[in-house]
Amino acid sequence: MLRLLHRSLPRARRSAASRSLGTAAEPGHAGRPRERTLTMETLNPLVKAVEYAVRGPIVTKAGDIERRLQQGVKQPFSEVIKANIGDAQAMGQQPITFLRQVVALCSFPELLESPAFPEDAKQRAKRVLQDCGGQSLGAYSNSEGVECIRRDIADYISRRDHGVPSDWDNVYLTTGASDGIMTILKLLVSGQGRSRTGVMIPIPQYPLYSAAISELGAVQVNYYLDERNCWALDTEELQRAFLDAKQHCRPRVLCIINPGNPTGQVQSKKCIEEVLHFAYEENLLVMADEVYQDNVYAPDCQFHSFKKVLYEMGPEYFNHLELVSFHSTSKGYTGECGFRGGYMEVLNLDPDVKAQLVKLVSVRICPPVPGQVAMDVIVNPPREHEPSYAQFIKEKNSVLDALAHKSRLTEQILNSVPGMQCNPVQGAMYAFPQIFIPPRAIQEAQLLSMAPDMFYCLKLLEETGICVVPGSGFGQREGTYHFRMTILPSAEKLTLLLGKLKDFHLRFLEQYSEAQTSVGEVPGDGLQ
Amino acid sequence: MLRLLHRSLPRARRSAASRSLGTAAEPGHAGRPRERTLTMETLNPLVKAVEYAVRGPIVTKAGDIERRLQQGVKQPFSEVIKANIGDAQAMGQQPITFLRQVVALCSFPELLESPAFPEDAKQRAKRVLQDCGGQSLGAYSNSEGVECIRRDIADYISRRDHGVPSDWDNVYLTTGASDGIMTILKLLVSGQGRSRTGVMIPIPQYPLYSAAISELGAVQVNYYLDERNCWALDTEELQRAFLDAKQHCRPRVLCIINPGNPTGQVQSKKCIEEVLHFAYEENLLVMADEVYQDNVYAPDCQFHSFKKVLYEMGPEYFNHLELVSFHSTSKGYTGECGFRGGYMEVLNLDPDVKAQLVKLVSVRICPPVPGQVAMDVIVNPPREHEPSYAQFIKEKNSVLDALAHKSRLTEQILNSVPGMQCNPVQGAMYAFPQIFIPPRAIQEAQLLSMAPDMFYCLKLLEETGICVVPGSGFGQREGTYHFRMTILPSAEKLTLLLGKLKDFHLRFLEQYSEAQTSVGEVPGDGLQ
Repeated sequence: MLRLLHRSLPRARRSAASRSLGTAAEPGHAGRPRERTLTMETLNPLVKAVEYAVRGPIVTKAGDIERRLQQGVKQPFSEVIKANIGDAQAMGQQPITFLRQVVALCSFPELLESPAFPEDAKQRAKRVLQDCGGQSLGAYSNSEGVECIRRDIADYISRRDHGVPSDWDNVYLTTGASDGIMTILKLLVSGQGRSRTGVMIPIPQYPLYSAAISELGAVQVNYYLDERNCWALDTEELQRAFLDAKQHCRPRVLCIINPGNPTGQVQSKKCIEEVLHFAYEENLLVMADEVYQDNVYAPDCQFHSFKKVLYEMGPEYFNHLELVSFHSTSKGYTGECGFRGGYMEVLNLDPDVKAQLVKLVSVRICPPVPGQVAMDVIVNPPREHEPSYAQFIKEKNSVLDALAHKSRLTEQILNSVPGMQCNPVQGAMYAFPQIFIPPRAIQEAQLLSMAPDMFYCLKLLEETGICVVPGSGFGQREGTYHFRMTILPSAEKLTLLLGKLKDFHLRFLEQYSEAQTSVGEVPGDGLQ
Repeated sequence: MLRLLHRSLPRARRSAASRSLGTAAEPGHAGRPRERTLTMETLNPLVKAVEYAVRGPIVTKAGDIERRLQQGVKQPFSEVIKANIGDAQAMGQQPITFLRQVVALCSFPELLESPAFPEDAKQRAKRVLQDCGGQSLGAYSNSEGVECIRRDIADYISRRDHGVPSDWDNVYLTTGASDGIMTILKLLVSGQGRSRTGVMIPIPQYPLYSAAISELGAVQVNYYLDERNCWALDTEELQRAFLDAKQHCRPRVLCIINPGNPTGQVQSKKCIEEVLHFAYEENLLVMADEVYQDNVYAPDCQFHSFKKVLYEMGPEYFNHLELVSFHSTSKGYTGECGFRGGYMEVLNLDPDVKAQLVKLVSVRICPPVPGQVAMDVIVNPPREHEPSYAQFIKEKNSVLDALAHKSRLTEQILNSVPGMQCNPVQGAMYAFPQIFIPPRAIQEAQLLSMAPDMFYCLKLLEETGICVVPGSGFGQREGTYHFRMTILPSAEKLTLLLGKLKDFHLRFLEQYSEAQTSVGEVPGDGLQ
């Protein structure tokens, strides 16, 4: 010990008197200055490769502008409107009263004595608490989730799917859907070189997928949605992507987002059947991101769960195809993003793999229990004979009606803008219009080493305070440009936003048009 | 399209009439049966390598026994006592009223009008809500956490450390401490072969570390705590582990758990200073797991944060050494495990690396907001002049006094058992006694391909209903055996547990003793 102490006498030992806080390495320090251990050179290269546009540079910039506004710095607008992220309550949507009552009761059970809370909310809270360790939200739950909540979810799935059986032992609570998606992908990643796991994802996609694939070092396999056909999923394109990918990796999983994010389409039953058939034939595990299952607006569309369609294809499919479906508290009519609640249902997983899944989730011990409670209310809302039913239905319909209205409003106004084209927002919470960007603007963006649609969105933000996400963050066909905007602002604010957007777009076209082209001539049909 | 449909006509298409649910692949199915995509052979090998003893097979077995008890199956005991996990509220600890009041107010803001809630709780709730999107818990927060909570945490750190400055921009809320630890390790993992990141962890360790290292494919570098010296951390041993590791990897990070888990020691200031000096000299980033900072029981011990000690070592250290400290809502006197709240403070991180950290955490969007609120109350509890102060202090002291009492009780009784030796439980929530396992029991365990302490703990569970975790799950010196038990059961239940444990141990020794050895002769001194 003495030997060691001698060897390692502090190089920078200071007397007590000099222990004030300096601001830089002291010049008198003998020997090499200490280098940082964690630098951009030594950082995990997989982390470096991760991109996540929904909270990328444009959102940082929006924050900066917002702060400047608060400090009284003058801008050509009075507020930043954040249409970049599906965060309903941040845009003013009110929480569902019943859900919050149950969470409050579980958080502070003394309220169970209060006459201010309805009986059905109390009954829900008591039931969940009974299944919690020490009857408290503050205990860890099982790693898979609170048992009665898993049972409620299985019942919900079975009701939703008109009787298709659901085993609660296949249901796992998650920390939002993102967590579940990441967990399943983590199980699937193996092999090196040509045998490395390929993950098929739609383009455009929600960038959690590409980020997760980067982080895990898997191979991203893009299949393109058909923009000319309402972002439909064409199995011929799936086949193409699959065969191409087999040249350099081993595609093992097919990710689907239905209703679509950022694209807003709702898949037909026929389409889902074809996709499942394809996955069956090619031995792919299917990950069905169904977090927008309650967000369907187009009267001719209907949500079909992948599981129900699989069931209807017969037992050979239903008993063999590996399917994982994800849901969340963050979307639907509740918009409880901050609770980070969600679940996944796994189908036909190898029992040994299920044990590995349980082991993996147990390392983080459990998903947040308040989020589990929120999920429970969503799958087990007030029933017709219960005291909270009337108010619940009123609140639920009010949110969904408003979203349906705003989906039409958005589509209409965007399509009225020359050089902009938007597919119907059949579901989810986003419009993903294609925009015409004049060649001169593309050149200017290239000079700034910026994607042209990033250039466009930055200018939009700076000139109008509107924050949307460039299509390049989601992926798009080469040479096409888009942005994603949410339909979440209030109808009034959304109308204002769309009006400003239209004006901006016309100005932008004029500013970057060739001298000989006038705005009226901008070819809307020229969009690819 | 037609071509494709033809090529891939469903092999297993069923008529509507035959769509009932079968239970196995149908024998008539022409062609190869569908193979599973995700099997133990194709599973991510890094996931396969993960081990997590705290929720491992012994806990599964405890659950099975519990269910059998509920079903009325007779056992030699009337209940399972779970002393395997630091889950205070599951063991009957009551939540701190003030904390739950604030969470309930934030969850259901109508309660802000209720006279049943104290003003200071309302003021805390209003303040947090004002910083939330849409003034709601249901909005996503910034990925780093709610701003005013980050500020409160920085203030707390500075108060705790007697004025050492803390910048709120260095504070990140997390989903429990586990999430933060995993995130920082993820940044640090790079290189291949001899340049692969080595992570120095104490042995015994909390198995989150080994699990995270496995999952990330980093290299685990063990340094052994000195059991004969109250589990002290000896820098000579650090040096040995570091030099050995350099032969086959690149050690870049040093993890410390203080107060210790599972070992319960509280590090002296001098020891921390030596460790920091070592890390400074060897260019290691230090991860200080300080989640038990409020759990110090021994009158001659005191919690010193790594940051404060670093500050006192002078600016050369304080301005250069990369240090990350972790805290949590799950431990301390609150025990709010289910909320999955926590934070980390980073010091001297490269600004570019910080940007990468923000990007990485933004992919999961944000930590659960109710957990952030719980964290806020912990760092900003009622003050002396506030209405909730008296009750708060009473509740806090009652929890901590009880834990201090139980730490002594546990140590005393364990040390009264022949063939058992336990260091003082100076802090945290666990005892980690060394146990003598007779050679004949070791042989029997080996025949079952079982670690001897796993064999011991399983027998303990089966015969007494007491669930503890074998030392092999935490790591221990070759040839020594331990188990970890929590001190969380009520004093009454703990006394019962310790009595049963003692009886069991004596029976076990007798059962496996050589014919010529009587229990009285079991050499307590023979423990290594």
